Amino acid sequence: MPSSINAIIDHYSAQVDAQLDAILPPATGAAEQLFAAMRYSVFNGGKRLRPALCFAAADAVAESDANSAKVAAALEMIHAYSLIHDDLPAMDNDDLRRGKPTCHIQFDEATAILAGDGLQSLAFQQLTELETLPAPLVVELIAMLSRLGGCAGMVTGQAIDLAATGTALELEQLKEMHAHKTGALIEASVLMGATATGQASKEQLNALSEFARAIGLAFQIQDDILDVESSTEQLGKQQGSDASNGKSTYTSILGLERARREATELFDHSIQALQCFGEKADPLRAIAGFIVQRNH
Amino acid sequence: MPSSINAIIDHYSAQVDAQLDAILPPATGAAEQLFAAMRYSVFNGGKRLRPALCFAAADAVAESDANSAKVAAALEMIHAYSLIHDDLPAMDNDDLRRGKPTCHIQFDEATAILAGDGLQSLAFQQLTELETLPAPLVVELIAMLSRLGGCAGMVTGQAIDLAATGTALELEQLKEMHAHKTGALIEASVLMGATATGQASKEQLNALSEFARAIGLAFQIQDDILDVESSTEQLGKQQGSDASNGKSTYTSILGLERARREATELFDHSIQALQCFGEKADPLRAIAGFIVQRNH
Repeated sequence: MPSSINAIIDHYSAQVDAQLDAILPPATGAAEQLFAAMRYSVFNGGKRLRPALCFAAADAVAESDANSAKVAAALEMIHAYSLIHDDLPAMDNDDLRRGKPTCHIQFDEATAILAGDGLQSLAFQQLTELETLPAPLVVELIAMLSRLGGCAGMVTGQAIDLAATGTALELEQLKEMHAHKTGALIEASVLMGATATGQASKEQLNALSEFARAIGLAFQIQDDILDVESSTEQLGKQQGSDASNGKSTYTSILGLERARREATELFDHSIQALQCFGEKADPLRAIAGFIVQRNH
Repeated sequence: MPSSINAIIDHYSAQVDAQLDAILPPATGAAEQLFAAMRYSVFNGGKRLRPALCFAAADAVAESDANSAKVAAALEMIHAYSLIHDDLPAMDNDDLRRGKPTCHIQFDEATAILAGDGLQSLAFQQLTELETLPAPLVVELIAMLSRLGGCAGMVTGQAIDLAATGTALELEQLKEMHAHKTGALIEASVLMGATATGQASKEQLNALSEFARAIGLAFQIQDDILDVESSTEQLGKQQGSDASNGKSTYTSILGLERARREATELFDHSIQALQCFGEKADPLRAIAGFIVQRNH
């Protein structure tokens, strides 16, 4: 296992990318455009943060393996589908993602809608191909992904966000929204990675859940901080784009300094939650550090 | 078991509706609009054809039960999500379905996209709640739904349809498109209903697969016939709306008379496929008759 955060992320990314390439249909045949759009959106230079958390959680409990790669691929496909649909004109109406045209710009809106739908189906199909795991464990993994990626998590968070745009949120409402919108899939990544080893104890899963909730929230606070800082430095104005879109953010509610302190406290809390794993959780610790220290 | 087709469909519908009401989140809380949109689209007066096929296949093999209702609910949620997304402005741009505003008209586009996404997640979640079935069977059911409702079926069929609009298809291409777009989920309905009894033999599944492929195709041919006939009678013109949209149809390729003959032959073939089940397949036979004789 490499020790620098970039090397850790590259190490895990190479494995999930190979698995994604294996499960995604080749872009040929009568539905060529659909499959090309799915591949375009999955291989878009993303950080593979959720796969990294999945592998690192597996390494904390036992040792990551081919099953970790399949679970990581399923998580990344759910993440990719949510970005495709979020970018649509009726949602956030974004033309660019990571400097490249979004799916509906590169292809068209209809193809983007279907590419998202197809990626969600394929994520669940991927989990049914965990042939070396006991079937009850496979069902448990599918239950986690369908809940935390769906109506008990991500999809509901997106809906809460939509409903809240233009209204000022209290801190607790903002936390509830983010706990669903981004936190749930981050928690799923850690819990599913650990569960798929077949060796995670109840105590370990509870510790990982606490870790995931803390870094999930820290991830979002850091996003809001970066939104303000990059606007201030690059655009020369105090307000970030979220604030000017009428969205409540951690920085708009807490102010920049308290938001920074909160992110640091959450980071400390996430590290404490990993105590029981000893040095086996070093990759998880490195990823947590990356989340709160990243500048993009 | 009632014997008239309407009574059979009502008998099965009541069971799947109760299950759908149990699994769909109540339309309250911060994501109230999302859950209201999901319920609106699921309870839209649909015929519940896929649930009926699921229950009837279970009755052909053994006896339909509470597990059949869960599988039927999952199938209907996949069907409902596909209709919500198909109706979107970027896809078929339909304002009405069954005489009522489509989901994006009644709510808004963003909510409609999310309602479809949430219904797909919830369909898989529903299958993980088949607690009384052996886990390997649950995994098999999820594999069937993710493949036939996704990239090996429905989603791919929709993409083939999109790619083909405006170009004239050969008969074999048209069949391939419909086999994916509507046939795959009809086949899934029958196979999953039978599989969830835990008593289906390989031979029975093969017979049901042959039945499903025949009636799936007959269903689409009858749709195309109704499109022409209702246009001729109600609008006073020869061309149906599909033909005027530049879509190839069975009637545009075969003509009305040959299309009618083909539908009848497929019906006969579907009935022959059921021979091994004796009178236990009477509900399936009644549904097949309904499919080719319906006038709406």
